[in-house]
Amino acid sequence: METHIELEKVLPAEIEARSFEIITEELGDMPLIPGTEPIVKRCIHTSADFAYARSLHFTEGAVEHALEMLRNGASIVTDTQMGRAGINKARLAKYGGQVYCFMSDEDVAGAAKAGGTTRAAASMDKAASLGEPLIFAIGNAPTALVRLYELIQEGRLRPELIIGVPVGFVNVVQSKELILSLKDTPSIVARGRKGGSNIAACICNALLYMLD
Amino acid sequence: METHIELEKVLPAEIEARSFEIITEELGDMPLIPGTEPIVKRCIHTSADFAYARSLHFTEGAVEHALEMLRNGASIVTDTQMGRAGINKARLAKYGGQVYCFMSDEDVAGAAKAGGTTRAAASMDKAASLGEPLIFAIGNAPTALVRLYELIQEGRLRPELIIGVPVGFVNVVQSKELILSLKDTPSIVARGRKGGSNIAACICNALLYMLD
Repeated sequence: METHIELEKVLPAEIEARSFEIITEELGDMPLIPGTEPIVKRCIHTSADFAYARSLHFTEGAVEHALEMLRNGASIVTDTQMGRAGINKARLAKYGGQVYCFMSDEDVAGAAKAGGTTRAAASMDKAASLGEPLIFAIGNAPTALVRLYELIQEGRLRPELIIGVPVGFVNVVQSKELILSLKDTPSIVARGRKGGSNIAACICNALLYMLD
Repeated sequence: METHIELEKVLPAEIEARSFEIITEELGDMPLIPGTEPIVKRCIHTSADFAYARSLHFTEGAVEHALEMLRNGASIVTDTQMGRAGINKARLAKYGGQVYCFMSDEDVAGAAKAGGTTRAAASMDKAASLGEPLIFAIGNAPTALVRLYELIQEGRLRPELIIGVPVGFVNVVQSKELILSLKDTPSIVARGRKGGSNIAACICNALLYMLD
């Protein structure tokens, strides 16, 4: 190296473990809810943003229920192709589940146009018609969360878990609070503006890795 | 709605424009480098993290050069399938470019194992062998940036642009500084620990949207 920049010597297979060590060190005595630590730490690992230690909200028993459902073959619905790309599909398939993303489907585009809504919202209707145990991982579209809220209120859908982590500025904060206002829906929500498809995928992966 | 949560009324087609309005408002009189504003704002749009207004570093003329190369059909190499999923491939193809991601290639896995390195680093070697104008969008692996640095120092690669935005805790900060130490390589780098595949993809998309 011709510069004075010093690289830490870490073997490829040890980079992730070393990262989690640093995260644990820097979290210090920050109180985390028992049983949620691997999820919180993986969100920080994915974002380098310690704000997730405070913003992530877990409804009671949500993690345990999600783990049981994944173990029994539940599938995951996500609102972006990036989210789908990031989820460990081989690990999910091991238990019988798959990842659905309907955002590029022509029928969804048509339904959104006809209804004056977003493709993300219309894709939640398509998911509701599947009639199977589903975990929703929403990392982009607040309109998807709003539509999930409506479908649940109308009794047309009962998600096993909603991962509510859209990112942004228009109705993002409100859509997350709507999900948290549901009494009987297990959820993991990043309160505030932050989140993303990467966070949605990493929460799914954290759950999958907890199964092993 | 049975709750007191109030949603802002914004038409689907207007959500992005409204988001950029809010970002511009909240940035206030924060000084941005002329010609880089659409990129900085899109990073904030993707992350809801205003830290990018301070952390993004642009080498002189990097944006103009990248736009010229994209217009002439340059392709993009990225280090994750999530990054590939997030880049607007239709827009890129309009100018003649495509997105490469070699992370899942068997020859890359073999080379990484043989060399005791990461697949991300090995995939940079594969990219160097293409011999065509390339933009590198690195959102995950600092080892990819370190390998790019070595290939450039050895005179084996001359990237048109390096988007250096890996996220994390092990050698992330250092790998970005290595790229910034290169005198003749155009780069856009998010200094510090933050970044991600989503940020890598959104910088590519910001460039593509600037072409129209």
